[in-house]
Amino acid sequence: MNTVAIAGVGLIGASFGLALREAGFTGDIIGVSSQAALDAGLKSGAINSSAGLAEAAARADVIYLAQPVNRILQTIEELAHLARPGTLITDAGSTKQKIVQKATTCLPPAQFLGGHPMAGKEQRGAAAAQADLFRDRPYILTPEGELSQRAATFKMWLTRIGARVTEMSAEIHDKTVAFTSHLPQLASTALAVTLAREQNEQLLSAFGPGLLDMTRLALSSADLWNPILETNKSEVLLALKRFREIVEDLQLSLEGDSLVELFAVGSGWATQLRRQGTKNSPK
Amino acid sequence: MNTVAIAGVGLIGASFGLALREAGFTGDIIGVSSQAALDAGLKSGAINSSAGLAEAAARADVIYLAQPVNRILQTIEELAHLARPGTLITDAGSTKQKIVQKATTCLPPAQFLGGHPMAGKEQRGAAAAQADLFRDRPYILTPEGELSQRAATFKMWLTRIGARVTEMSAEIHDKTVAFTSHLPQLASTALAVTLAREQNEQLLSAFGPGLLDMTRLALSSADLWNPILETNKSEVLLALKRFREIVEDLQLSLEGDSLVELFAVGSGWATQLRRQGTKNSPK
Repeated sequence: MNTVAIAGVGLIGASFGLALREAGFTGDIIGVSSQAALDAGLKSGAINSSAGLAEAAARADVIYLAQPVNRILQTIEELAHLARPGTLITDAGSTKQKIVQKATTCLPPAQFLGGHPMAGKEQRGAAAAQADLFRDRPYILTPEGELSQRAATFKMWLTRIGARVTEMSAEIHDKTVAFTSHLPQLASTALAVTLAREQNEQLLSAFGPGLLDMTRLALSSADLWNPILETNKSEVLLALKRFREIVEDLQLSLEGDSLVELFAVGSGWATQLRRQGTKNSPK
Repeated sequence: MNTVAIAGVGLIGASFGLALREAGFTGDIIGVSSQAALDAGLKSGAINSSAGLAEAAARADVIYLAQPVNRILQTIEELAHLARPGTLITDAGSTKQKIVQKATTCLPPAQFLGGHPMAGKEQRGAAAAQADLFRDRPYILTPEGELSQRAATFKMWLTRIGARVTEMSAEIHDKTVAFTSHLPQLASTALAVTLAREQNEQLLSAFGPGLLDMTRLALSSADLWNPILETNKSEVLLALKRFREIVEDLQLSLEGDSLVELFAVGSGWATQLRRQGTKNSPK
């Protein structure tokens, strides 16, 4: 891995560039993005040069797609005509089945490796990037069959930047993140919308830190999330259905004075989630 | 305000003691609690002595009830026979109508002042207490009529410890926190229960920081929350109903490809919540 092109120098793309540098990568990192993002990425050192997609594809041996999901799908189509056969193309999109299908249609086998770093923060953009964004966070890879040599090298760099790399199929990935990522997003948005619709001027003067936690994801914008949810619609609808059933269970339990059991299940699982995170983490 | 008794030396009670000390209170602070809580409170300096409720009530001119809601109701009954006429009794319970009603039945008018500090953290108990827990956080008071002189003095101390004091009726308080506190708690628990019931072993290896935010409240225990929800049942059921309607709206919007509007409403409100917090805050 000598030359990396990063398409989409936003929070994820720029953090990946910074992380590579901190882990000792000395090759070129070429940014392909809007001028504002390129300027921010050059300033922080996340990238050291910029180019159009065609030039970047001609020079890079790894192309890292860190764009919104709908743009990743478009870029893969463009790369079908631009990328050299030896180049690894990998992405950081939040859903995997549609992207892997698109890659299978457009690219030779073994050229593409689906990926999803499960890291993020409130702020977006290259200016918010940080070299340790992926550290101790899950980084899912969805290889079709055995890892190629170039994919194995890329995976080694993910380990070097401190990510907890896990492999699973694109299908299992999408089923899983419907519950662990897309449903939490929609629950947060639903909570914020519920409060937005209440005619009560005291809402904004009587809240604690819990409401801030629970509405942090709701700050996310539709332009980022619409393509994610659109490309995982059936799984997300299933997760929403299950969630709605549990909300109904809570209503019935509260009417019947027996919330203890549901609280025990919820707190038990939330505790397990934190233990698992600690267990998986090298820290 | 010369001698304060704190009944329930847990996170809230012990933090109140520490905050008073840091704000310059030099009188006695008497703890009334379990031996383990008293030991932790004495060690941290949150209290400087301990006593049973009867002795504490005989000595204190402010009695601060920082117990679970169901225990507060019991303690008010006990205090009807114990408190001196000149003593102010105030509480830190998460619901107010049942508590104010109980106080109206058991105590002379103007002796009781309902309160609710909207502060907290994951950990419970005196050992987790911190002097700045109430700083820049809403502290709701629900006086019945004009503040008495002793209540005004207590309010001044709340301001000194950095709390953002707001007054409203017990009824408005309970309607409001059903949406800003009880609903977020139940949404978090519902999310954790939904994931607990999914048969997917990858759930614990493919999650990001958003899921940790969204399941933090779910760590709370039923013994704390059951009395809160029981004493605000009709308002909480209404909030749950509204929330479930919005979840249904999200399902329909996702099926119909138009999540943009709901995301805009949600992110707009979440942004407003944060601006309001900043505006109210002296920092």
